[in-house]
Amino acid sequence: MRQGDGAIIRIAQLGAGRMGSVHARNAAANPRLDLAWIVDPRADIAGALGHETGAQVATLAAVLADPEVRGIVVASSTDAHLDDTRACLAAGKAVFCEKPLDLSLERLEAAAADFTRADVPPLFVGFNRRFDPHYRLLKQRLDAGEIGALESLQIVNHDPETPPPAFIPGSGGLFKDFTIHDFDLVRWLVGEPVVQVFAWASCLIDPEIAALGDVDTAKLLLRTASGKLCVISNSRRSGYGYDQRIEAFGAGGALRVDNVTNSAVSAWRAGGAQADAFPYAFIQRYAGAYQAEMDHFADILAGAATPETGYAASRAALALAEASALSAREGRPVALDKE
Amino acid sequence: MRQGDGAIIRIAQLGAGRMGSVHARNAAANPRLDLAWIVDPRADIAGALGHETGAQVATLAAVLADPEVRGIVVASSTDAHLDDTRACLAAGKAVFCEKPLDLSLERLEAAAADFTRADVPPLFVGFNRRFDPHYRLLKQRLDAGEIGALESLQIVNHDPETPPPAFIPGSGGLFKDFTIHDFDLVRWLVGEPVVQVFAWASCLIDPEIAALGDVDTAKLLLRTASGKLCVISNSRRSGYGYDQRIEAFGAGGALRVDNVTNSAVSAWRAGGAQADAFPYAFIQRYAGAYQAEMDHFADILAGAATPETGYAASRAALALAEASALSAREGRPVALDKE
Amino acid sequence: MRQGDGAIIRIAQLGAGRMGSVHARNAAANPRLDLAWIVDPRADIAGALGHETGAQVATLAAVLADPEVRGIVVASSTDAHLDDTRACLAAGKAVFCEKPLDLSLERLEAAAADFTRADVPPLFVGFNRRFDPHYRLLKQRLDAGEIGALESLQIVNHDPETPPPAFIPGSGGLFKDFTIHDFDLVRWLVGEPVVQVFAWASCLIDPEIAALGDVDTAKLLLRTASGKLCVISNSRRSGYGYDQRIEAFGAGGALRVDNVTNSAVSAWRAGGAQADAFPYAFIQRYAGAYQAEMDHFADILAGAATPETGYAASRAALALAEASALSAREGRPVALDKE
Amino acid sequence: MRQGDGAIIRIAQLGAGRMGSVHARNAAANPRLDLAWIVDPRADIAGALGHETGAQVATLAAVLADPEVRGIVVASSTDAHLDDTRACLAAGKAVFCEKPLDLSLERLEAAAADFTRADVPPLFVGFNRRFDPHYRLLKQRLDAGEIGALESLQIVNHDPETPPPAFIPGSGGLFKDFTIHDFDLVRWLVGEPVVQVFAWASCLIDPEIAALGDVDTAKLLLRTASGKLCVISNSRRSGYGYDQRIEAFGAGGALRVDNVTNSAVSAWRAGGAQADAFPYAFIQRYAGAYQAEMDHFADILAGAATPETGYAASRAALALAEASALSAREGRPVALDKE
Repeated sequence: MRQGDGAIIRIAQLGAGRMGSVHARNAAANPRLDLAWIVDPRADIAGALGHETGAQVATLAAVLADPEVRGIVVASSTDAHLDDTRACLAAGKAVFCEKPLDLSLERLEAAAADFTRADVPPLFVGFNRRFDPHYRLLKQRLDAGEIGALESLQIVNHDPETPPPAFIPGSGGLFKDFTIHDFDLVRWLVGEPVVQVFAWASCLIDPEIAALGDVDTAKLLLRTASGKLCVISNSRRSGYGYDQRIEAFGAGGALRVDNVTNSAVSAWRAGGAQADAFPYAFIQRYAGAYQAEMDHFADILAGAATPETGYAASRAALALAEASALSAREGRPVALDKE
Repeated sequence: MRQGDGAIIRIAQLGAGRMGSVHARNAAANPRLDLAWIVDPRADIAGALGHETGAQVATLAAVLADPEVRGIVVASSTDAHLDDTRACLAAGKAVFCEKPLDLSLERLEAAAADFTRADVPPLFVGFNRRFDPHYRLLKQRLDAGEIGALESLQIVNHDPETPPPAFIPGSGGLFKDFTIHDFDLVRWLVGEPVVQVFAWASCLIDPEIAALGDVDTAKLLLRTASGKLCVISNSRRSGYGYDQRIEAFGAGGALRVDNVTNSAVSAWRAGGAQADAFPYAFIQRYAGAYQAEMDHFADILAGAATPETGYAASRAALALAEASALSAREGRPVALDKE
Repeated sequence: MRQGDGAIIRIAQLGAGRMGSVHARNAAANPRLDLAWIVDPRADIAGALGHETGAQVATLAAVLADPEVRGIVVASSTDAHLDDTRACLAAGKAVFCEKPLDLSLERLEAAAADFTRADVPPLFVGFNRRFDPHYRLLKQRLDAGEIGALESLQIVNHDPETPPPAFIPGSGGLFKDFTIHDFDLVRWLVGEPVVQVFAWASCLIDPEIAALGDVDTAKLLLRTASGKLCVISNSRRSGYGYDQRIEAFGAGGALRVDNVTNSAVSAWRAGGAQADAFPYAFIQRYAGAYQAEMDHFADILAGAATPETGYAASRAALALAEASALSAREGRPVALDKE
Repeated sequence: MRQGDGAIIRIAQLGAGRMGSVHARNAAANPRLDLAWIVDPRADIAGALGHETGAQVATLAAVLADPEVRGIVVASSTDAHLDDTRACLAAGKAVFCEKPLDLSLERLEAAAADFTRADVPPLFVGFNRRFDPHYRLLKQRLDAGEIGALESLQIVNHDPETPPPAFIPGSGGLFKDFTIHDFDLVRWLVGEPVVQVFAWASCLIDPEIAALGDVDTAKLLLRTASGKLCVISNSRRSGYGYDQRIEAFGAGGALRVDNVTNSAVSAWRAGGAQADAFPYAFIQRYAGAYQAEMDHFADILAGAATPETGYAASRAALALAEASALSAREGRPVALDKE
């Protein structure tokens, strides 16, 4: 445990659920941050997380009124993200909001002024892929011109297991809940606007998902302004862990991010070489990304960085999700408005 | 060299070009076949290939008139395939025709009766992927139910280098010349009709290809009758050798064919582990498949097998190619007629 | 940053050099420890490390006199380890001593009573391999009987680059400085005494090392009581990063730890697939192991664990190093005394 | 099947057992060779192999008397190799003798004159590793200086399963029967004499092997004239197929030959990625090497090559085997006579 040297910045967090626990632990372990308050109406989980991380339980009003609090992590329920974020920003607090900022493009755009006015504090929306060290290195090497001009991308994003049916109705559907990461990845890696999207989706895995009006399997094509072609493959259930891969094809070859494994241990038996398993799911696979997000928030609070992803990236990814849903529904490519 | 035991079957070959050389060498090395005649109007290459393989140069008429000739390998120029094949079949000879049987669906369908009448000799059209031992094992393991019901497929088919521009005009274009293999692969692996295709294609590599009205990069989606989703990625130039991969996703996991390498030798240096190169191109990568094709032809001639791929597979793959071209041209999904 | 909840244990550290920095940072980041004091006669580096970790610079006497200090990390220079450790233990402080406890088996055995008397505080000597998560998983899977009875082991331990010549004289030589890790690994993994060792060593890399009477390349065979055979390969310079691998062969197959890579990013170019580099050296490769060591020390201080490695493991590994040096010198196998 | 063009060379083969079948099939498939005669006292297997390969069954006397026979493949039982080879050479026939030429160094040296006199026809002894394309590429890249000066080698040679006990008594023991390949590999790759060997061997797998006075597990160290260090790991039973690997360490990095797999197909399931199995045993793993051996024999017969391995290589490998057996028996390093 490191003791203070004056540069430590006080923050608070809204939400003590699954993602809230991840962020609160990372905040507690971050030597530049002092997680002072946890806000969650569920007193039991708020208390437990506070005990674990050394934070006190408080109300949102109290947190907003604490002049020492300079930043707030918004990890409340998805449908509260937008209002919570606006309240925090309005109180002059920088915000690190767990994605998504909102599930409605219309609502998001209606609130645009609250994010884009001149003196609004910084808003960072946590798109975890951009903070994964493997993807970040891929991006660096692409930008360094290692394979020349990028021509096409292929992303595989398959979850290990279907979510419980109760998760589906509030999720926003596959494109807004799950593919949203891939939309942001594509935008980040290609560095130019996506102009058109085509999506086919099926419910091949879990009939309960179909009964709830959602899909569990999708293949999408995205085309950028200069004609680059991107493929996204989504599945709600891989059967083999969390499948997170990118292939970038360019004039001078390809750069790839393969799946990581839980360890470098392998077994050789009669059937052949068996590598260790892939990480179970996003909590394990992106543990380093969530730490890096918290570091990025500390940088923002310290004035050393501006948010890599905020309102604009949230809006653009959500627009792609809505366009994809429309494409899948109507069976035709859908053009994107100019960003 | 094995000497005869009476079961050796005399065959002839039309065409002594690049693929002709591959097939003639495999025929010469096949202990069940006696490649007696080579037909090619280019006397020099016909003579050289004859010398190498122990075959005599002859005319088509002479070959068709030789009652000992039971089978003919049609490796003439693509635009002669259809007429050559029909002539051979009409003369009562079994045919192994290098793909494609023809580049025009209309022409092919107009000739349908010549392939489907009751007493026509066997016609085998060489779709090499089906005879690759890796893909064949994938198919066996899929069919054995190893990953349960197949849900989606992703195929990568990238050529090492763009062809010379002179090749393009007679090629039929990317979909008929190149993607045709992937169409056949999809049909073979999914085991049910493809009902719809959507294709986006760009010319990102070689402007000369664009000037000739063709494309060099494409991403395609195919949907089958039961909703399975297939992705095909095509590029005329990878920059890293011949990229030939398949991923099959199912309820119980995934089965994959990775790229092979030229050897099991690798180098460890300051930059990390460097595997040996991927095969340069199809001649190297599918050498075993071409041998297996010739073996399949020997089986057909011996009455031990019926052709795995003939008129119907040729027609179906060509229909997919034409539908894909239409999709790419009009920017919409295109439905396939019932096969 | 986590604020206190009463269970935090105050510790101090001797030494602010390279390994001292690693341990002090891990102590500072450990939520159960409060690194209060840093002791190093070199005021500048002591001050810098103290500033970075929030610790104060102090003298050994002051630290030993602080009744709140319950544990001390001994990361002073190697030749001070033994005396520092004895002083700390004598003052009633638990010790986490960076390996080696000492370079002389004779001296170590002469001090045995100070480590083995009834009321001595716990002594943990940091053999990092045992705390690496990959090796630990290997050990667990071996112990779980996954490959049945272990028959042989092969360990590769190659450093990326030769140390500066100035390092050699005080290092104890290759076997005591470098192979010592492998000796401990073998003892840990095979779970039975090593009874005989045979070593061949050469100076093939750096003539300066030879001039100083040391070697830079060695291959060793170890035989255990039940006849298991172990191979150790050592090199002071790999040319490709830090090579750290284990293969365990048993009745039912093999379990292996391969090298890790810096990322899951790879490049495919004309020469083939190029993986990312191996970690440069032990600081990078065993970063997780050093954190786990500090956690183990926290467990020991909390009374939740007894040291995995202390005087006995240090003595046994050193005895193997001395026997190996004798074997290499005299060109014959050397038997080990009963442990 | 290729028909003759005058350059085809008539050969015969002694032995129609397991290795005899391999060689006879390769001879029959080789376009430059005409396998005319098979000699084996076991009429049934001789007849079957003759039928399969188109060769006639004959007696040794008849074969030696046939002036058209220019070369003979000696694949008779091991204890007949030496006499058969001498008889063939004495009759003026070139010989391709399956390894070993003999199991007794004394006997081999006593016959030296028959192999080294001025006008003896070429003798090629089939050490299969040298003809494996992977190992051959390793050798080429080493010789090209890719990793600078070679410093050490590590060879793994593990059989999939123990042989039947009945095989052991006539095998010559582990070192002469099995390690012999590794001795030749070391000599070939290091390109300088081995001057000393040290071997430890145990019987850890099959007590019946111990009862017959042999061992099933061994680790050997070899030292060359310039101080290069080589490790050989042997096991009669891997439990995971045939393990055939080489690592060569040099000043500029490492070159490695990994195990090949039966295919490029892998499965991803809950436990992780499962590659296809390793080849079962030498017949599968070295199929290409045996074909290349036959090609080398055709080259020798055509005057286009001199034998890569003959009497000298056989003697040197056998001397290493005897020295290793002595080392294992007496527990000390054993020096080799100057080659």
